[in-house]
Amino acid sequence: MKLSKRMTEMPYSAIRKLTPYAVAAKEKGKKIYHLNIGAPDVRTPDEFYRAIREYNVSTLTYAPSQGIPELLEVTSKYYKGKNMDFEPEDLVVTAGGSESLLFCLLALCDPGDEVLTCEPFYTNYVSYFYETGVTFNTFPTKVEENFKLPSKEDIEKAITEKTKVILLSNPGNPTGAVYTKEELERIGEIAKEHDLFIISDEVYREFIFDGAKFVSFASIPGLEDRVVIIDSISKRFSACGARIGCVATKNKDLTSIFIKLATGRLAAPTLEQVGAVALYQMDDSYFKEVNEEYQKRRDCIYEELMKIDGVYASKSAGAFYTMASLPVDSADDFARWMLEEFDVDGETVMMAPAAGFYQHEEKGKNQVRLAFVLNCEDLKRAMFILGEGLKAYQK
Amino acid sequence: MKLSKRMTEMPYSAIRKLTPYAVAAKEKGKKIYHLNIGAPDVRTPDEFYRAIREYNVSTLTYAPSQGIPELLEVTSKYYKGKNMDFEPEDLVVTAGGSESLLFCLLALCDPGDEVLTCEPFYTNYVSYFYETGVTFNTFPTKVEENFKLPSKEDIEKAITEKTKVILLSNPGNPTGAVYTKEELERIGEIAKEHDLFIISDEVYREFIFDGAKFVSFASIPGLEDRVVIIDSISKRFSACGARIGCVATKNKDLTSIFIKLATGRLAAPTLEQVGAVALYQMDDSYFKEVNEEYQKRRDCIYEELMKIDGVYASKSAGAFYTMASLPVDSADDFARWMLEEFDVDGETVMMAPAAGFYQHEEKGKNQVRLAFVLNCEDLKRAMFILGEGLKAYQK
Repeated sequence: MKLSKRMTEMPYSAIRKLTPYAVAAKEKGKKIYHLNIGAPDVRTPDEFYRAIREYNVSTLTYAPSQGIPELLEVTSKYYKGKNMDFEPEDLVVTAGGSESLLFCLLALCDPGDEVLTCEPFYTNYVSYFYETGVTFNTFPTKVEENFKLPSKEDIEKAITEKTKVILLSNPGNPTGAVYTKEELERIGEIAKEHDLFIISDEVYREFIFDGAKFVSFASIPGLEDRVVIIDSISKRFSACGARIGCVATKNKDLTSIFIKLATGRLAAPTLEQVGAVALYQMDDSYFKEVNEEYQKRRDCIYEELMKIDGVYASKSAGAFYTMASLPVDSADDFARWMLEEFDVDGETVMMAPAAGFYQHEEKGKNQVRLAFVLNCEDLKRAMFILGEGLKAYQK
Repeated sequence: MKLSKRMTEMPYSAIRKLTPYAVAAKEKGKKIYHLNIGAPDVRTPDEFYRAIREYNVSTLTYAPSQGIPELLEVTSKYYKGKNMDFEPEDLVVTAGGSESLLFCLLALCDPGDEVLTCEPFYTNYVSYFYETGVTFNTFPTKVEENFKLPSKEDIEKAITEKTKVILLSNPGNPTGAVYTKEELERIGEIAKEHDLFIISDEVYREFIFDGAKFVSFASIPGLEDRVVIIDSISKRFSACGARIGCVATKNKDLTSIFIKLATGRLAAPTLEQVGAVALYQMDDSYFKEVNEEYQKRRDCIYEELMKIDGVYASKSAGAFYTMASLPVDSADDFARWMLEEFDVDGETVMMAPAAGFYQHEEKGKNQVRLAFVLNCEDLKRAMFILGEGLKAYQK
């Protein structure tokens, strides 16, 4: 009576695999600064809760499989404001960015087909590669270069005859990289020459620092039929628990497959869609305020990290992660030690060891991903604890 | 630039494939009685909405991947009251019964493995067979026998060397069958002899008529390691739009794979879990009342159907579906015609053609699945319209 090979072999999420140690630490009364997971402390706008409170139906029925029309409408409007030309009928509402990726991989790849992505990549992608039976390959990007994309030739070296899709997150998780128009066009050219689809995970679209401008794959002419956008309200509106995302594409055949998939699982949650409508109806000042807050946090964590002996961190241009290399042999061992053995006045820090974000795990062996999702004061305290921890660990 | 073979070949849901015709009919001002989909008109208990309204958090964070502890706790208590011995740690909360099935198939089967189920089966299972790359085979059950399970020998005829799992819904969707303890033991014996898992979809557990007693696969001794229960609050509490379900098993290795899968998609929706906690805390009088209402509806639809010339219907023992064979060549054509061409004073009926519920589609060609999810008055009116429609169609 054996369980499946595919799931037995699937690795645990690198972001959450230390959770049992965190639980044990909390049971001992330790306070933990959670920098391991992109769960912001920013307030979910009241508009969300209010819309749900005021939604007055006697029976909570299935929403339409494609999503409630009001949500398709406001999401389309939001995209048009971002120079992304999606009509309501180009969208399918999903149970978060996670289901969006599942739908994309199922719709674009058969088992054995290959996905090309950059290294490091968002580690949870791997779960979906296993679930859908696709393989993956990577081209390298480097912390010293702030994770910019390599040359066309270097990317093409990683393409095989099985490659079907290029998958990128932009702004990058875990890299914090924000790709320039020129970088997107480079990918677009490769996609056209090798007849590939592009899945662009843009859930951090609003988190762009230093006055840079975000360019979406959906606004690059000539790629309309090849591009699918993965999106989610989780980070944008600090509503991770809502589990509302979407897929967006101008490729009609693809949309019709997405609808078929959406119909198979009946619907995304109704109330959360109602709340999401209200979020998209807020005016842009919300984004401005949140963006400023995250830029402050980015500055704060970067400065504090660079003060610690032997630590090198990337200065994130977007999203809310920074990758840091630490003066340890194994960031995995160190991160566990921080939870199990170390504290400063009863407080410690939880980080995501970065090996799981690499295809070649040894490349990320001494790195961690830090999510700057806490306010500056907490971040400073967390970085102080990290610094003290490193000193103690090295002895 | 081709989309995947697996998704291109996946059929549309038999329950919703007529939706475009229903939309067009509504646009013309027709009123439609929806008997095609198991979306009850019964009120979702106020407890659900109240708990969500009163849940006061500033940031809507991810729930724990396994589910919020309170929900695991009350669900475990609910099971124990049903003679199903599940502890909180035996459960993983899912985004509805749909995700439960996805998790089960991924965890138990590799691509090419086979699932054995009865015919007719719940048609949406097929979407998940395609998504997970498993094949399926069936043994027949018959409307004239109220869909009881065939003999051990007849079931074993459908087992192949690829068979890994027996999947049954109990009470049955679309059959309305409720299996006896003896029938469950028969399946259990087969599972042990052929070393198979049993996935038991029990989302209609509370809908049992004529004073019968429901027996769960989880209460049959000796099967603990082989049985997984698929569950959902959708039908139980008339909360389809919440998308909250769970998987339950005593097999620890399997639970640990479920947790890995749950972690990959991060979490099920938070607010809906909070609402679900309140639902499970209600006392049993709720179920009694709802059960009486559905029994009345079952009686009502059965009586009305049997009055129509040439119609034969099963008398459902549970769930809220009845299968009816109609005096037409193609129930598919007829159901579409009812939406496109027919009405009585501007009203018509939508049904799920049953061919998609069969592996051998011709067996269900003249059958429809009717969900008795409307009150008796509406059901009577709908059956009147169906009768008139049949008369007009036969001319």
